[in-house]
Amino acid sequence: VNFQDELFLLDCGEATQMQMRKYNIKFQRINHIFITHLHGDHYLGIMGLLFTYHLLGREKTLHIYASPGLRDIINLQIHLSGCSLVYPIQFHPLNHSLSEKIFENDKIIVETIPMIHRIPTSGFIFREKQKLKNIRIEALADENPSHDDFENIRRGADFISPNGKIYPNDDITVNPPPSRSFSHCSDTLFSDSLVKYIKNSDLLYCEATFSKDKADKASEKFHCTTEDAAMLAKIADARRLIIGHFSARYEDIDLNSLLLESKNIFPNTELAIEGSVFNL
Amino acid sequence: VNFQDELFLLDCGEATQMQMRKYNIKFQRINHIFITHLHGDHYLGIMGLLFTYHLLGREKTLHIYASPGLRDIINLQIHLSGCSLVYPIQFHPLNHSLSEKIFENDKIIVETIPMIHRIPTSGFIFREKQKLKNIRIEALADENPSHDDFENIRRGADFISPNGKIYPNDDITVNPPPSRSFSHCSDTLFSDSLVKYIKNSDLLYCEATFSKDKADKASEKFHCTTEDAAMLAKIADARRLIIGHFSARYEDIDLNSLLLESKNIFPNTELAIEGSVFNL
Repeated sequence: VNFQDELFLLDCGEATQMQMRKYNIKFQRINHIFITHLHGDHYLGIMGLLFTYHLLGREKTLHIYASPGLRDIINLQIHLSGCSLVYPIQFHPLNHSLSEKIFENDKIIVETIPMIHRIPTSGFIFREKQKLKNIRIEALADENPSHDDFENIRRGADFISPNGKIYPNDDITVNPPPSRSFSHCSDTLFSDSLVKYIKNSDLLYCEATFSKDKADKASEKFHCTTEDAAMLAKIADARRLIIGHFSARYEDIDLNSLLLESKNIFPNTELAIEGSVFNL
Repeated sequence: VNFQDELFLLDCGEATQMQMRKYNIKFQRINHIFITHLHGDHYLGIMGLLFTYHLLGREKTLHIYASPGLRDIINLQIHLSGCSLVYPIQFHPLNHSLSEKIFENDKIIVETIPMIHRIPTSGFIFREKQKLKNIRIEALADENPSHDDFENIRRGADFISPNGKIYPNDDITVNPPPSRSFSHCSDTLFSDSLVKYIKNSDLLYCEATFSKDKADKASEKFHCTTEDAAMLAKIADARRLIIGHFSARYEDIDLNSLLLESKNIFPNTELAIEGSVFNL
C-alpha cells in the first residue's frame, strides 16, 4: 500500500524482494510490514528482506505486525547467522482473535480483521482519517483570519470577524474528499461475520483460491471461492473488489473465467495480476 | 549436481525453486540437499521448497545435510504452519570443524571440507568411486566365463580357462574412464589448509566474492578474491575452476574483468553465470 509515498507491505512471500526490484518499488520506503499468518506463501520472503536491509545499512526502525511466532522465527535465524542487524526491529505481536487498531499516524489508521483459517490469521483495513474541510479563501477576502482561525474553520467552526460579522462555516468551506478505506482479507473462509469490519470499503482485496465448482475444497481448506469473495464484497457494500491468491492448479489462461464467476455476483471485480497497480 | 539423473542440491538461496522451474530442472529428483552454512543467501529458499514438496505430495525421504541449527529453523516453521509434511525428512547434522564422509552410494561419495568463514561452514566434495575395468569381450571369444568370472576380471583378476589357459588381466580388459571429482568451496577465506581436501579436483567451484583490489575487504569478511580462488585451484592442481558468489557491487558488465583476474593465475577458469551447465 503506497500512501503518500510511504509504503506499507502486506505479506511477504518468497522472492518478494526480487519482485519489488522487478517492479521498481522503492522498498527502502517500507517502514511497516504486516503479515496475515504463518503459512509459507505469506511470509517466507521476510528474512531475506531483513538481511538485505542490513546489507544496505538501513537505519530506520522497521515495524513488523505478525503472529508472535514470527518473532521466534526471525530471532532464531538472526542468531544463527552470527550477525546482529544494523537497524532496530520493533515487533508488534497480533492477537488474531479480535479486531484491534495496530497502527495510527496523522493520516491513517490500520486495524486488524479476525480471519477464519486453519491457523490464526488476521486481515487488515487501512482507513484514512476524517480530513479537514478546505477553506474558500475568496469568501474571506475582506478579512484577515489568524492561523488558529483557519484551523478552527477547517474543523467546522464559523468565522466571526473583529467587527462581529458572522461567516457560517458552510459559506466559507467546501467539504474535503471522502476518506478512503482498503480492506485486505487473506486467507479466510467466507463468513457473514467479516462484513461488519469491512463494511463500505472503497477497495476490498479478498482471496479467491478456488473456482465456484470447488466449494467443497474451499471449505475443507478454509479458503474462499470466487463467488465467496464476490458475495462478501456485495454484502459489505464494497465499491470495488480485487480477487487473487489463486490455486496453482489454475493457469494464467483460466483466470478470466475466475474473474467472470466473481463478476456475475459483483460486477466491479478485478484480478490481482502480479505487478498491477490499483489507484484509490 | 546431476549424477546419472539423480540431482543433489548444494545450497538453496531464496527463490531457488523459481530458478529451478525457470531452467527446467526436475526438482522432484532431488533427494539430498547440502547446505554449506546458515547465512541467508545459502539457505533461505529451503522452507519454500519443503512446503512445495508437501503440496506436490512427495513420498520419498528428503535428506538434508546442514548445521544443526537448520533443523531448529525448519521444525519451528513447520510447527507454526500448523501442518505436518506428508513425506519424511532425514536431517544429517554436520560437524563443520572436520572433514567427514556424509554420503555414499554404489557410485559416489560426498565428503565435507572445513571452510574458514565467519560462522561454521563446510564445503563439499563429490567423488566418483573407482570404477570397474571394462572387459574386451573379443579377447575371451573362445571361452565361456561365468557371471562371477566377469565380476572378478572387472576387479582386476586374471582369467583361467577350464583347461588351464591363463589370460592375464591386462590382455582382456581396458581401464575404465578415470573417476571424476567436483569440489564446492563456499564461503571461505583463502587458506593452504584447504588444498589437501580438494587436491586434483577435476572441477573446483570456489567463491570469489571480491576483485583482487579488495583483498582487505575479503579478509575482513572471510571471503576469497578472484586471485585467491585461482591460487587455490593452482596449488591444488585442479583441472578447471568455476568462480561465483560475486558481491552485489559488481554488475554483469564487471564479471569479465573478474574472470580475467582469475585467468591470469589459473587460465582454465569459468564464470558461474545463472543457468550455466558444466559437464564433467
